[in-house]
Amino acid sequence: MSYIREAWYPVVWADRVGRELTRHVVLEEPIVIYRLQDGGIAALQDSCPHRLAPLSLGRLKGDDIECGYHGMTFDCAGKCVLIPGQDIIPGRALVRAYPVQVKYGLVWLYMGDARNADPSKIFHIEQYDDPAWHAVQGDTLRIECNYLSLCDNLLDPAHVTFVHATTLGTPAGATVPVNNEYHGNEICVWRWIRNAEPIGVFAKFGGLTGMVDRWHYYNYSTPSYFKIDMGSCPTGSIPDMERRSEGTQMYTCHVLTPVDQRTVLQHWFHVRNFRTNEFEMDADLSASLDMAFREDKVILERIQLEEERAPDFKRIILGIDAAPMKMRRMVDKLIQAEAAPRPTA
Amino acid sequence: MSYIREAWYPVVWADRVGRELTRHVVLEEPIVIYRLQDGGIAALQDSCPHRLAPLSLGRLKGDDIECGYHGMTFDCAGKCVLIPGQDIIPGRALVRAYPVQVKYGLVWLYMGDARNADPSKIFHIEQYDDPAWHAVQGDTLRIECNYLSLCDNLLDPAHVTFVHATTLGTPAGATVPVNNEYHGNEICVWRWIRNAEPIGVFAKFGGLTGMVDRWHYYNYSTPSYFKIDMGSCPTGSIPDMERRSEGTQMYTCHVLTPVDQRTVLQHWFHVRNFRTNEFEMDADLSASLDMAFREDKVILERIQLEEERAPDFKRIILGIDAAPMKMRRMVDKLIQAEAAPRPTA
Amino acid sequence: MSYIREAWYPVVWADRVGRELTRHVVLEEPIVIYRLQDGGIAALQDSCPHRLAPLSLGRLKGDDIECGYHGMTFDCAGKCVLIPGQDIIPGRALVRAYPVQVKYGLVWLYMGDARNADPSKIFHIEQYDDPAWHAVQGDTLRIECNYLSLCDNLLDPAHVTFVHATTLGTPAGATVPVNNEYHGNEICVWRWIRNAEPIGVFAKFGGLTGMVDRWHYYNYSTPSYFKIDMGSCPTGSIPDMERRSEGTQMYTCHVLTPVDQRTVLQHWFHVRNFRTNEFEMDADLSASLDMAFREDKVILERIQLEEERAPDFKRIILGIDAAPMKMRRMVDKLIQAEAAPRPTA
Repeated sequence: MSYIREAWYPVVWADRVGRELTRHVVLEEPIVIYRLQDGGIAALQDSCPHRLAPLSLGRLKGDDIECGYHGMTFDCAGKCVLIPGQDIIPGRALVRAYPVQVKYGLVWLYMGDARNADPSKIFHIEQYDDPAWHAVQGDTLRIECNYLSLCDNLLDPAHVTFVHATTLGTPAGATVPVNNEYHGNEICVWRWIRNAEPIGVFAKFGGLTGMVDRWHYYNYSTPSYFKIDMGSCPTGSIPDMERRSEGTQMYTCHVLTPVDQRTVLQHWFHVRNFRTNEFEMDADLSASLDMAFREDKVILERIQLEEERAPDFKRIILGIDAAPMKMRRMVDKLIQAEAAPRPTA
Repeated sequence: MSYIREAWYPVVWADRVGRELTRHVVLEEPIVIYRLQDGGIAALQDSCPHRLAPLSLGRLKGDDIECGYHGMTFDCAGKCVLIPGQDIIPGRALVRAYPVQVKYGLVWLYMGDARNADPSKIFHIEQYDDPAWHAVQGDTLRIECNYLSLCDNLLDPAHVTFVHATTLGTPAGATVPVNNEYHGNEICVWRWIRNAEPIGVFAKFGGLTGMVDRWHYYNYSTPSYFKIDMGSCPTGSIPDMERRSEGTQMYTCHVLTPVDQRTVLQHWFHVRNFRTNEFEMDADLSASLDMAFREDKVILERIQLEEERAPDFKRIILGIDAAPMKMRRMVDKLIQAEAAPRPTA
Repeated sequence: MSYIREAWYPVVWADRVGRELTRHVVLEEPIVIYRLQDGGIAALQDSCPHRLAPLSLGRLKGDDIECGYHGMTFDCAGKCVLIPGQDIIPGRALVRAYPVQVKYGLVWLYMGDARNADPSKIFHIEQYDDPAWHAVQGDTLRIECNYLSLCDNLLDPAHVTFVHATTLGTPAGATVPVNNEYHGNEICVWRWIRNAEPIGVFAKFGGLTGMVDRWHYYNYSTPSYFKIDMGSCPTGSIPDMERRSEGTQMYTCHVLTPVDQRTVLQHWFHVRNFRTNEFEMDADLSASLDMAFREDKVILERIQLEEERAPDFKRIILGIDAAPMKMRRMVDKLIQAEAAPRPTA
């Protein structure tokens, strides 16, 4: 199995990147990340081409990295600028440098051909910078499962009733059918549950007490970006489903980093349109969301082990699997397109 | 390598099965076991056929299990009775249910074709319910070795002198030859050691102080049932070897569960014809036996590692290996017979 | 990959060998080592040929080992002298005995054909017994890397500046070229660094304060013996490079035991020509050296992991790699020569 490489992936929260050399792994590639003297961020292949020593074990000299084994030194573009004891620097003495962007508090790397690194392709949510909304940096959860299993999960309203019974779901939703919409490399799975109890998170933080109409819109786009629109309003108060922002609404955003075939990083944050000035509730709300995401982690890590134990298992397909299966076909198609020979210019 | 599947295997002590869902593995198959409302016990394949989530992570609803991921619900016969959000239940939406019996305090599962599940084939020891005898539930020892290595060990009087020098053996036995008898799928290995010191367990618990005649009869039957008859009498006091019950006698019973190729559960209990009303000594005697069985565990787990390290090792065969080798041929023959195509009725 | 087998390898410090049975692994072969009653040392294959039980789990009976499983007993030459319960001892009932020598405080085993076990081929350093020099037993460092990576490292003056900046190196050496000399199965890599600060170890223990001429001679001989000659003298005071013993000089000797493809034991000791009567400084000096060797361990273990992660990595070759590459060719050539069919006498 492979990955979509021509895409931006988030790797770490920008406020955790300093002048120390830190190692990360994205799409099975080890990468050393560090803060430059001008405040920028550099991302280099974390392998000295001489003996494979991780450059992250070396030393930062200005904006260059000196390998900790023999002192080969690379600038922040990956070019070798010094080999101690040797005047000639071989042409192959370089390490890959990854295009870097900072957006929504995260460091994003372009994992494909650097010439294709268009920052406009990074995950986007228009409410993030809208003064009527409040954005809160969440956290990163490391899950020991294939990233596609987490993608399945983030396209799946049906599990909410069972996995998140007290946080994001209530029994009322169990039998309401979902709608699936597909546009290019995007999927939206959504449903409204009418005249129901509010879910735990909205009851606690949104101040909703009576019966509500509530909705979930799970928006996916390749490679592994998710924007989940959850909200509620007093029963019957929003007749036009497109005017959801008049209700109590929150987007939880999940942008995933496939580390390897059995590890994924789930970076998440949220933006909300209620109590936008009450920063003191941010940590509480984040803690509730974190607890819910950890409920998924338990299930997903066990399923990973089961799949490894029974690789020939033939699963049965349910109606709720339509969107996850479509997502996997979208991913496969992009991977195959990348693998195809390109016409030369 | 494979297993005999058309057989009953013990899996857990019945008094440890309650209303919580517990996962077990038998012959590499994950199985969820739980107590029914009527006091019975159910055993189902521990994999939801939808996404492989272990059902043991789900919830018990009456006698049904609701999967913890999407709420698919199975009755105690393995039939899917509910798929939330979907009216049609696919024909393949079922999990395997294993025939269950409780005998000698253990839960036994039939691992082959349920139509062949004849309870009379479960391990049997007639003294268990005889009022002249006293039965004591032992324990379960998990050993990280192939179950056949433990079978070898339980057919092998020769190791007792060296592995169990202070508990089940004495140096006197080292050179007394053994007798091997084979009947169908059964083996008996036995010897008498005449006019010797009593072994530690009988000296301590059987009150034997002088010289004794003592015997070991190791009875094996497929798939992995062992009944070991150990006893002693004052030297010369039992001329007829068939009247051993006139002496101080104990059967230790070992019924094994192959978990996988490198893990076995050794369930054991014993019945004795001495001090049958002195229940307060049961725990002490069991502790002595447990200590002896752990002496085997140390050796068997090291041998497992050595066999994995040196898979091409060509061992030498000794006289004491006759019965273990016969046992392995019996097992192989049954495995091959199960694999052969069956005539249709 | 294979090993040079027709060679002596050190396995353990002789003063740590007593009457208990201890297991060691050399070239992937498990070996039990113990002290004989006459003070000698025996080394036998640590596998009973019956069931693979490690003999080191058994008991010492005089100079014989009794297997802990069934009592098969082997003398210190590996011959089976007793099988309990059986009169005939099969011809194959023996374990390999390794030729043993004690030299420089270490137990050396000959791993090839015992008929070739010539003690004069063991690592030799003439200063060890010279009264003008003082020898100090060091220690053994276990490193989780292929032994050839450690051999590379011990033939490589270039890393000293970067890995051992405060102990064995200074920045001054970074650009001084090295000389490589090859003779049969021996390599010498050396350089002088003129008029430089003394390195940390010599400044601290050798009392050198002013500017010095200093040298490193890395002497390798197959299979994995290293004698590293480090020394210093006041700048210009030794015009003849062959008269180094007039300066402050120390040989650190490293004799390696390949345990398996990813584990090596680094046994080391040193001899010095300064402060030869000040035994109280031995432990301090050894601790400084040990700290330096652990700096290599960190790097080498990480490189091992990287090599396993990226087995197809094509490294670039630098000038400093000439001697390590020559060493690997020497080793390969000897391995191939051993694998070639031998002419019969």
